Amino acid sequence: MNSIVINLAGDETELASSDRGLAYGDGVFETILVHNGKPVWWDEHWQRFMRGAEVLGIRAPDETIVWNACKQLLLNSDRCVLKIILTRGSGGRGYAIPDNQDPRIIISLHPAPASILEAVNLRWCETRLACQPQLAGMKHLNRLEQVLARNEWQDENVFDGLMCDTEANVVCATSANVFVKIGGRWLTPKMDRAGIAGIARAWVLKQWSQVQEAHLSRLQIDQAEAVFVCNAVRGILAVKRLGDREYPVNGDIADLQNRLAKEQAAFAMGEHSGS
Amino acid sequence: MNSIVINLAGDETELASSDRGLAYGDGVFETILVHNGKPVWWDEHWQRFMRGAEVLGIRAPDETIVWNACKQLLLNSDRCVLKIILTRGSGGRGYAIPDNQDPRIIISLHPAPASILEAVNLRWCETRLACQPQLAGMKHLNRLEQVLARNEWQDENVFDGLMCDTEANVVCATSANVFVKIGGRWLTPKMDRAGIAGIARAWVLKQWSQVQEAHLSRLQIDQAEAVFVCNAVRGILAVKRLGDREYPVNGDIADLQNRLAKEQAAFAMGEHSGS
Repeated sequence: MNSIVINLAGDETELASSDRGLAYGDGVFETILVHNGKPVWWDEHWQRFMRGAEVLGIRAPDETIVWNACKQLLLNSDRCVLKIILTRGSGGRGYAIPDNQDPRIIISLHPAPASILEAVNLRWCETRLACQPQLAGMKHLNRLEQVLARNEWQDENVFDGLMCDTEANVVCATSANVFVKIGGRWLTPKMDRAGIAGIARAWVLKQWSQVQEAHLSRLQIDQAEAVFVCNAVRGILAVKRLGDREYPVNGDIADLQNRLAKEQAAFAMGEHSGS
Repeated sequence: MNSIVINLAGDETELASSDRGLAYGDGVFETILVHNGKPVWWDEHWQRFMRGAEVLGIRAPDETIVWNACKQLLLNSDRCVLKIILTRGSGGRGYAIPDNQDPRIIISLHPAPASILEAVNLRWCETRLACQPQLAGMKHLNRLEQVLARNEWQDENVFDGLMCDTEANVVCATSANVFVKIGGRWLTPKMDRAGIAGIARAWVLKQWSQVQEAHLSRLQIDQAEAVFVCNAVRGILAVKRLGDREYPVNGDIADLQNRLAKEQAAFAMGEHSGS
């Protein structure tokens, strides 16, 4: 058993074909790395999860109830990926929200991807991200643009693809945020019009307070000195190649990777606050 | 039993919590009026369903298999709403599509809404539709914008809300297309950047070959002589009031409503081609 569906009371329930998560993508999710049986950055994931629920007006679950259900599922797990989906549940007339929301929480475990130690290759995606400030930054369930973009290539040597928004700003990879070094300074795209504001991205911004959030063009990325992508599951991945452009090894990235490895090791030792 | 989940072979299956329809909104749907036990405009719905599957690259189901499953579910039903969802099924690594797609088709019956004979009230929504030409016109499962827009009001006297895109073009209501009469001519917004190209909208365009598809501003709608909204389930609904603006009774709309009633009656008598 590697998945469970619960309601707000923590009782086990079933996913219904009438669930609004399926019907409309009416929900949010988190994808969390589990290291030595412990969810890394749980607090940060939980906070984003709750911010998403608030924006969508979905009744928020109790952290302890969800944490306990996750813990139960994680018994005997060492390294894996924990996915938590919160949907508004069933009911409501069409798009209208039901008066008494009965949200569902779908928790599942997945194998952790193999660690990538070398720098990765990226490509540019044709699929654009629409600009929607109201949903920008959130990890909601409307992810068709990412599905279309990710399926522009089959080449297993290409780790991910960078996406621009419909106004030609570079936003992120299909499943990672991006950082670029230009003129000696690190920059990362703003998440105010499209894209997901990743937990690893927030961690990098905290480590490097001098990083600037900016609107970046494709030309600026092409001319960058160094590039890396990051997400909560994969960590920090140096970019070797992006389309035709090659980037040299950069010491800043290795330094960040070392800091992250130490932080994950510390997580694996300690007990988590949400428990 | 008012819902069923089948696979491409037509065998009954279960909705999995790993379904990509839930995870990413990776699918399309149709909402079909059933009149005297017969799905109205089946062919048109099916064609849009298949176009959506093609754009998303989802393996298409066989029409006869889905039709038979619907027919089974519709036994003893007279007037109701038939909803069909096609998802890419489970599998794949993250956004990447699985090599062997095993799509699910979720078919469900819902009570038909009570007929509305009078003109309705609309409002303007604050929530904007993002411009995404790649997905415009499709009835896919990413519908968070509609959920947010529909929940801007509780007033039961307001039938629906008109939405603009992020570039200030009027697109559609949350669950209907819109037609406006300006300077003696009927116009309807283009569906090339946002919104769903409705089946009832297509029917109107076929009836009235002189209707122009255009980019329309909110000001143009405010100054219109007459307005109506339409969808496959509700039919043609004259608009009495939109925000502060009131519109007079218009003979063109009544004429269209009569034609539609005749067409639906004809559907109810005949046998459908997909059977």
